[in-house]
Amino acid sequence: MIIHEDRLFPADPGSRAVARRLYEPVRHLPIISPHGHTDPRWYAEDKPFPDPARLFVVPDHYVFRMLYSQGVAMEDLGIARRDGAAVETDARRIWWRFAENYHLFRGTPTRLWLDHAFATLFGMTRRLSAETADFYYDTIADALAKPEYRPRALFERFNIEVIATTESPLDELKWHRMIRDSGWKGRVVTAYRPDAVVDPDFDGFRDNVARFGELTGEDAGDWAGYLAAHRKRRAFFKSMGATSSDHGHPTARTADLAPPAAEALFQRVLKGHPSPEDAELFRAQMLTEMARMSLDDGLVLQIHPGSMRNHNPLVFQRFGRDMGADIPTQTEYVRALKPLLDRFGNEPSLTIILFMLDETAISRELAPLAGHYPALRLGPPWWFFDSPEGMRRFRELATETAGFYNTVGFNDDTRAFPSIPARHDVARRVDCAYLAELVVQHRLDEDEAHEVAHELAYGLAKKAYKL
Amino acid sequence: MIIHEDRLFPADPGSRAVARRLYEPVRHLPIISPHGHTDPRWYAEDKPFPDPARLFVVPDHYVFRMLYSQGVAMEDLGIARRDGAAVETDARRIWWRFAENYHLFRGTPTRLWLDHAFATLFGMTRRLSAETADFYYDTIADALAKPEYRPRALFERFNIEVIATTESPLDELKWHRMIRDSGWKGRVVTAYRPDAVVDPDFDGFRDNVARFGELTGEDAGDWAGYLAAHRKRRAFFKSMGATSSDHGHPTARTADLAPPAAEALFQRVLKGHPSPEDAELFRAQMLTEMARMSLDDGLVLQIHPGSMRNHNPLVFQRFGRDMGADIPTQTEYVRALKPLLDRFGNEPSLTIILFMLDETAISRELAPLAGHYPALRLGPPWWFFDSPEGMRRFRELATETAGFYNTVGFNDDTRAFPSIPARHDVARRVDCAYLAELVVQHRLDEDEAHEVAHELAYGLAKKAYKL
Amino acid sequence: MIIHEDRLFPADPGSRAVARRLYEPVRHLPIISPHGHTDPRWYAEDKPFPDPARLFVVPDHYVFRMLYSQGVAMEDLGIARRDGAAVETDARRIWWRFAENYHLFRGTPTRLWLDHAFATLFGMTRRLSAETADFYYDTIADALAKPEYRPRALFERFNIEVIATTESPLDELKWHRMIRDSGWKGRVVTAYRPDAVVDPDFDGFRDNVARFGELTGEDAGDWAGYLAAHRKRRAFFKSMGATSSDHGHPTARTADLAPPAAEALFQRVLKGHPSPEDAELFRAQMLTEMARMSLDDGLVLQIHPGSMRNHNPLVFQRFGRDMGADIPTQTEYVRALKPLLDRFGNEPSLTIILFMLDETAISRELAPLAGHYPALRLGPPWWFFDSPEGMRRFRELATETAGFYNTVGFNDDTRAFPSIPARHDVARRVDCAYLAELVVQHRLDEDEAHEVAHELAYGLAKKAYKL
Repeated sequence: MIIHEDRLFPADPGSRAVARRLYEPVRHLPIISPHGHTDPRWYAEDKPFPDPARLFVVPDHYVFRMLYSQGVAMEDLGIARRDGAAVETDARRIWWRFAENYHLFRGTPTRLWLDHAFATLFGMTRRLSAETADFYYDTIADALAKPEYRPRALFERFNIEVIATTESPLDELKWHRMIRDSGWKGRVVTAYRPDAVVDPDFDGFRDNVARFGELTGEDAGDWAGYLAAHRKRRAFFKSMGATSSDHGHPTARTADLAPPAAEALFQRVLKGHPSPEDAELFRAQMLTEMARMSLDDGLVLQIHPGSMRNHNPLVFQRFGRDMGADIPTQTEYVRALKPLLDRFGNEPSLTIILFMLDETAISRELAPLAGHYPALRLGPPWWFFDSPEGMRRFRELATETAGFYNTVGFNDDTRAFPSIPARHDVARRVDCAYLAELVVQHRLDEDEAHEVAHELAYGLAKKAYKL
Repeated sequence: MIIHEDRLFPADPGSRAVARRLYEPVRHLPIISPHGHTDPRWYAEDKPFPDPARLFVVPDHYVFRMLYSQGVAMEDLGIARRDGAAVETDARRIWWRFAENYHLFRGTPTRLWLDHAFATLFGMTRRLSAETADFYYDTIADALAKPEYRPRALFERFNIEVIATTESPLDELKWHRMIRDSGWKGRVVTAYRPDAVVDPDFDGFRDNVARFGELTGEDAGDWAGYLAAHRKRRAFFKSMGATSSDHGHPTARTADLAPPAAEALFQRVLKGHPSPEDAELFRAQMLTEMARMSLDDGLVLQIHPGSMRNHNPLVFQRFGRDMGADIPTQTEYVRALKPLLDRFGNEPSLTIILFMLDETAISRELAPLAGHYPALRLGPPWWFFDSPEGMRRFRELATETAGFYNTVGFNDDTRAFPSIPARHDVARRVDCAYLAELVVQHRLDEDEAHEVAHELAYGLAKKAYKL
Repeated sequence: MIIHEDRLFPADPGSRAVARRLYEPVRHLPIISPHGHTDPRWYAEDKPFPDPARLFVVPDHYVFRMLYSQGVAMEDLGIARRDGAAVETDARRIWWRFAENYHLFRGTPTRLWLDHAFATLFGMTRRLSAETADFYYDTIADALAKPEYRPRALFERFNIEVIATTESPLDELKWHRMIRDSGWKGRVVTAYRPDAVVDPDFDGFRDNVARFGELTGEDAGDWAGYLAAHRKRRAFFKSMGATSSDHGHPTARTADLAPPAAEALFQRVLKGHPSPEDAELFRAQMLTEMARMSLDDGLVLQIHPGSMRNHNPLVFQRFGRDMGADIPTQTEYVRALKPLLDRFGNEPSLTIILFMLDETAISRELAPLAGHYPALRLGPPWWFFDSPEGMRRFRELATETAGFYNTVGFNDDTRAFPSIPARHDVARRVDCAYLAELVVQHRLDEDEAHEVAHELAYGLAKKAYKL
């Protein structure tokens, strides 16, 4: 088998036995996926995935960034160029390039996710390599043509209780509507991701705000009207199942300006070409505005700070956004969040979920904040840290100060559909391994560890996201 | 039992056996507690502790910060409000709220400390929960009424060889005097903590300096007189057993101004409303002044930087200082300490003990500095890092560059009296576990590990603090 | 034995068995030492090392910094003073001071390296201590007089396939020439380390640039001539075996100025007394210039940022550079490297090797950058992090995002000749221990782990450095 029953469990036999016992009752729990980026169109149309390369390689920036780092051209992996220049279209050749470089993924979570999908979905028993590339390709291609490999069938097979996608306020949510109208029972909800209309540096910000006004019938060129537009759009998203908003700013900065100052700032950024400080301040202010709205409509506020987007200008120019060149930066939370927390941090009815791409903040800033403020919870380790070592470090760094109950279970945060069960399984295993070590070191009783394992795998996400 | 004989030891049976052997000779060593915040009044008056809630919940910000983070009102835990508004006074109801939320402490050091006290002091054999809350309450309340649960009896039972408290230079040390005069043999010493008269941002700084002058008969409005007042007061503290001073600044910044510049700065800050830069610079300069005095009077200089105090203005306004809302911030040491080290870092007769709330500085800055400068030693992991994982990381991050002998053993740093033996026991166990792993990996011989274990548990603290 | 066959292997018996199997085929592989600071004169002249103290204590700042931190005067260890004042000259007395303080090195890599040399070179079976000091001294002194302890014999005994030294562009490489002319088969190559002529803060920078012009016959006072001088000198170094350049700047900052701006900057720094910003910008620009030249001549570009040199002015004034007082500082890479990467980061034919003294950058910045940019690779943990815990953390922090193949194997980076086999052995053991844990946790198959172990011990360094 290419995946082992005991993978990710502690080496020590006594600890491993405890980990197995903790894992057994949670391994088959339904998947709560409260934050992710799968395409709602898949579930709406339920068409077959096209071919192995377009399922596993072309859309997955974890996969092609590693191949690119070792000199494989992105064009040769079939990544579309913005200028329409020719790229590889032969799926089997793309697959070959991937297969013959599969050793590059040794030691990475990508390897764990891929092997899990290869084994559990396609029954693979030998490792992917140049030698097995064709067998893999043919097996997967054959399977994808079958009805049981269509998106809805996989959704059900994956035992997904609910999944959230992420949409812009400018999105009319037609796929979500189509899913609802179809009578299919799979629960797919949206999340409110307003970057396009709250980030002055976003492409087409002014036009976006204008369209935002049109969509909502509000005068979005006016501060009050702009806020009203958000309220309306949030209500619409909520009617389509949303229980959260999501904010991916470069920093964790927040602001709590007096209304006239906020209004003046809004007018400045709306004129176009705001200063970097104004753009940053506007994003900061909007987090506090969103929290204020959350107090009314109950949406959970997610903050995903700390990524420098599009670090590589050549890759951005040729291939566009989300092409593996977003790089984490140092992120300060204690001063940055203070304006928001001064205003709303003591509200027990508000839930703000903080994510991080800077592990140094976990024990120093995030756990101390979350272990004090009623409104704060810590999101799971994200992106490059959604990995066995990343998850283990997160527990070791967060638990002693924030406990388990100020965290919110797991998010897969993925666009790679077949990786969803793999990612949740990795999280469950790593958490059970961590808990097993607490048990064996007599820092937690085994009956308690069972309760915690269930919360981490299922209960906390459901509760924190109100799903 | 709610505490296990092998708690905190490595999972691997071979390593665990070594850890047990290393721990056995150090487990009952007397406690050296060179830095802490217990109330000297307890030892002076030797009155019974009032009730279980006022012993374990009300005074312990580790306990109530976690409950507060999960929505329990601080008023409902009996925390006094500054405005005198009513708060819960029924100790049993407070205890109940704590007991029914005891699961929140899973995985935290607070849980370890509490269980240790419940088991060793009160003989508890079942976990605290809603179900056992009343039994706990009654058992503890009954015990507290007995003479053997009074402060001095517990001090002796805890096998404390010496404990330091922390007082302001404005304190007349009357409780310490009362302890001395009582003929009781327990050794309780003070430490010189001059924040009230060296931090221009401290409440009432100007009045404090004026009173400082009165107390010492020096003209504290004059730079030379102000320094002379420190010298006198340090001498008085020394006569009451002090062997150290302690400084809790926001940053590790130090300065070494020429005397006229220092004097001019002093006059500026004394006028009131100093600029943030002047306030910071004055604190910085005072660390160097304290080091200069230490060269003469031999007091050990402790620097505790990196906490943003009173982060939550609502909590500060309602409940005051030290209410669980002090949050660590990133702390730079290499540039910050340079003025002080340029002046006194090469003095082998000076001892400066550095603490941290920012683990990133341990391997990068603190261990390299302490592994070079004769005057520097590293304090144990502090506050949120006084925990099994925090201590383990400290050893892993510090030892390879600073060794063991540039560290100073353990400080419990606590106001929670019953947690003292628990905290020292955790430190001894974690250190023995770390040493056991070095032994099993053949990085240290077992006879050496025994010597080091004794130093970490007892010898280094005694020597570094001259106790 | 003072070194154990299983040292540094995991405690868990199952994991240890795997580690042994992985280590066995790599333990005796030849040493590739692509970056270090041994003295080429040793190999050129092949004279005996003078005595035990001058082999192990006097030249090793890891050793004397620790002794100094605990109050041993550097003069008493025989470290020469710049003012020519008397220092200890009795090698046996120096050795005694070292031996009686050997316990200070418990838990440090220095201890591992020394014990390895004592055991494997001199057959020691009892630990160094005051008791064994004379026996050690006599045994080592006797051995050093024998031909098989001369530099070339040791080089061969160490099984060094190739070693790189580091020289200034102003160096005429006479020892390297002498090695070549001698007919000895040991492969000793140089590396191009241009600090003296690219760092405006370097002692004698202007004179150095003038001499640089003379050496090359270029007008080094002119920007074009200065660059041409680099090109010529790089070619000369390449002819003496160099395959890399090396750059030890205070930060990782890079710049990509337009040629007129670069030229104007060059003229400003050449005038003397440049502003700190100009000095920093010039170093930054020169990294990009060096990368441009690397594209032509193929030299690998090494960047070693983040050390504050000569932190202790007293030690610098008395003893000079490299005396154990260089302290790491926080180092930012994401913004700092952007100008260089914008220009050349997508070149698969360029190799830039990044080192770090700030572990916080590994998972947050370095692994994400190296896991994307074709031109980037990560150097091994350096200096204080060339240690068992440092190496383990490096693998845990880097592998999940950068994989193994964006790293470059091990560098010993040492001036301590007898520590070379010890350091490579530690690296091989720690890597095998890490791989064994991946295998036992079923994150990697054992056959793959064997391949990776070979790459980490031998293949990657040879390939990355083109040796």
